[in-house]
Amino acid sequence: MTFTHDQALFEKTPYLLTPGPLSTSVATKNAMQQDWGSWDSDFNTITADIRRQLLSMAGDDDDAFVCVPMQGSGTFAVEATLASITDSTKPTLVLSNGAYGKRAAQILSYLGRPVQVLDKGDYLPPLPEEVDAWLTAHPEIATVVLIHCETSSGILNPLEAIADVVALHGKRFIVDAMSSFGAVPINVQRIQLDALVSSANKCIEGVPGFGFVIIHREVLKTSENRSHSLSLDLHAQWSYMERTGQWRFTPPTHTVMAFHQALAQHQAEGGVAGRLARYTQNRDVLVEGMRQRGFQTLLDDAWLSPIITTFFSPRDPNFAFARFYAALKARGFIIYPGKLTEVESFRIGHIGQVDSNVMNALLVAIDESLNEMDVTDTRPPQAAYSMGELA
Amino acid sequence: MTFTHDQALFEKTPYLLTPGPLSTSVATKNAMQQDWGSWDSDFNTITADIRRQLLSMAGDDDDAFVCVPMQGSGTFAVEATLASITDSTKPTLVLSNGAYGKRAAQILSYLGRPVQVLDKGDYLPPLPEEVDAWLTAHPEIATVVLIHCETSSGILNPLEAIADVVALHGKRFIVDAMSSFGAVPINVQRIQLDALVSSANKCIEGVPGFGFVIIHREVLKTSENRSHSLSLDLHAQWSYMERTGQWRFTPPTHTVMAFHQALAQHQAEGGVAGRLARYTQNRDVLVEGMRQRGFQTLLDDAWLSPIITTFFSPRDPNFAFARFYAALKARGFIIYPGKLTEVESFRIGHIGQVDSNVMNALLVAIDESLNEMDVTDTRPPQAAYSMGELA
Ligand SMILES: Cc1ncc(COP(=O)(O)O)c(C=O)c1O
Ligand SMILES: Cc1ncc(COP(=O)(O)O)c(C=O)c1O
Repeated sequence: MTFTHDQALFEKTPYLLTPGPLSTSVATKNAMQQDWGSWDSDFNTITADIRRQLLSMAGDDDDAFVCVPMQGSGTFAVEATLASITDSTKPTLVLSNGAYGKRAAQILSYLGRPVQVLDKGDYLPPLPEEVDAWLTAHPEIATVVLIHCETSSGILNPLEAIADVVALHGKRFIVDAMSSFGAVPINVQRIQLDALVSSANKCIEGVPGFGFVIIHREVLKTSENRSHSLSLDLHAQWSYMERTGQWRFTPPTHTVMAFHQALAQHQAEGGVAGRLARYTQNRDVLVEGMRQRGFQTLLDDAWLSPIITTFFSPRDPNFAFARFYAALKARGFIIYPGKLTEVESFRIGHIGQVDSNVMNALLVAIDESLNEMDVTDTRPPQAAYSMGELA
Repeated sequence: MTFTHDQALFEKTPYLLTPGPLSTSVATKNAMQQDWGSWDSDFNTITADIRRQLLSMAGDDDDAFVCVPMQGSGTFAVEATLASITDSTKPTLVLSNGAYGKRAAQILSYLGRPVQVLDKGDYLPPLPEEVDAWLTAHPEIATVVLIHCETSSGILNPLEAIADVVALHGKRFIVDAMSSFGAVPINVQRIQLDALVSSANKCIEGVPGFGFVIIHREVLKTSENRSHSLSLDLHAQWSYMERTGQWRFTPPTHTVMAFHQALAQHQAEGGVAGRLARYTQNRDVLVEGMRQRGFQTLLDDAWLSPIITTFFSPRDPNFAFARFYAALKARGFIIYPGKLTEVESFRIGHIGQVDSNVMNALLVAIDESLNEMDVTDTRPPQAAYSMGELA
């Protein structure tokens, strides 16, 4: 199955070119047109099937991992994972280069667990040799946390190379794969990790309402009674689900049904490879079109993810993000603000039910919007040039 | 508007006679047929409107309270509230008579905060004079927690009388009104309380995915930096929402839209009074019909809630809950297992998009199912008689 642009959907509601919630298919939303009992075996079968499919997507062929869904947004699942795995005396190293790295560190301080931060600022990748040096200098570290795709800039951090370094040092490794899992291959047979976290409303193209953790069974087993929170107790959620087939507390039933449908479409599109191909094409069409128009990406090509791309705002004094946003929304596209501190930027997501036709339509809408605003100089602000080279 | 039995819905999917998730209207589910950007002002407007409507439902006419929604199931909102309000040195008294009282106490032990439990077992109400005596004997207590409708038995605990006692002693008062808010009147002008907690998928008839807290503004203000959890930090959620109009982390957008639609229907039905009238009628039809068939309720009439009712299982040796459940499901009704430890029971919810026609149809289905199972003796097990009088 290839993706087909859904004209009816487009007319009803703008495309969400944001990092999730994103545009979902009509079939996915249709799956929410029925009510399900959370105690009923029909629903339990769906939950079990979701967990099985996610494990298989992660390449867990020898049953070493388990999948534990967790109600709430993705952050809830990250917090549940950090609470289960990290040590209360030995420090956790967070490899931070944006908002979600900062958030992981913040969770650890809420937990009162020691944290060290290898802070690369807003847009530079943590490099394997830097991680190696840090771990050599700090043998007391027990666990390393990496954000796979740091959605705040769109950078795809070098997961495999860093995983090798962490494994060499014999540390535990947690990956926040919120915005990458399902579109960027992560295979637990090839990459040594203890847990990865993602959520329903990212590359699997469900609607928001729960996250999930793919975690090494033996690691999870040792985490009994380690959680600070009843609601976020990953071990308790898992053992209850194993025993009863049910979620420990009321699940977001409709979100779960939508996700199950979204998984079927993921599979029909060719799984992770199929999705990666479409998202990559989306990005390439977008980035090329934007560069033709004089825009510049924050990141060098080597670090661009297939998920979301940050562009510098035009230096033209007529440009204002709020007006640009409104002009594009009026044309059926919702974009996303930037998160850089030093210089103005905006982000455009290329995940969800969108294809290169949508990207081309967006480029036309961007032309119209810039025209309307009387913006001609699309070059980045001067300040952008002093932001330095990416490694 | 009066409730109309929706034949199409009934044919597609069984009625959920459970305490939530429950049967929702077609319009409520239709509200999930569109994707919404969580950053977009259209969505923020909806969030603001929901918060305003909930405050008004609670009778907060002088703006003393705020409404803070929280992602996750209802338990997440209870935990967020307990973490915000309870003291880390002065004990919290939990008035417990079932699973949700136990859960509140369990949350407090996760939090490492001192807790005392006035334990009335599985089905006896905590009485105002007992609370008075306890608080007199334990002046060190800072906060009291009551489960309004203890859904595990269906008992409606005496909220107003207990609130008066708690106020007299000058203690903080938290009400878990998960399964009652929206159908049983709770007016913060008349009942002195600090916070009440409920969720989207109960008497307001939304779908599951978030809870909400109605909390005294001054109490919430003093709770900054008191949370054990980033995700469940009620103060941070509130202050972020006040500042930006947005949820702090990705909201369950479709659930929020469904809830907004469900609120409109709540209003159209005559608000809390209208809903109470329908649910009460549902219960009366059900209980009378069941009693005519020889079934007995766990509780005396004085303690029956309009939400859910516990019936003793028939003593007939041919009765088995699993078969009964399946026979009713085949006829379009999902019921709920009991939670009593000493004696077998089952529960039937009477909330959600169901009316007395549905209850009558259920009674026919019960007749057929008992017939099919060859159950004739519907009297309670002998053990039920030794369970003692309710106060
Ligand atoms: C990499 C990453 N981590 C964590 C999160 C947090 O997820 P949520 O907003 O669902 O809490 C996000 C959200 O976009 C993300 O992209
Ligand atoms: C009184 C009461 N409190 C708390 C809860 C917990 O809510 P949830 O299952 O959504 O976590 C429930 C659920 O039915 C309830 O009835």
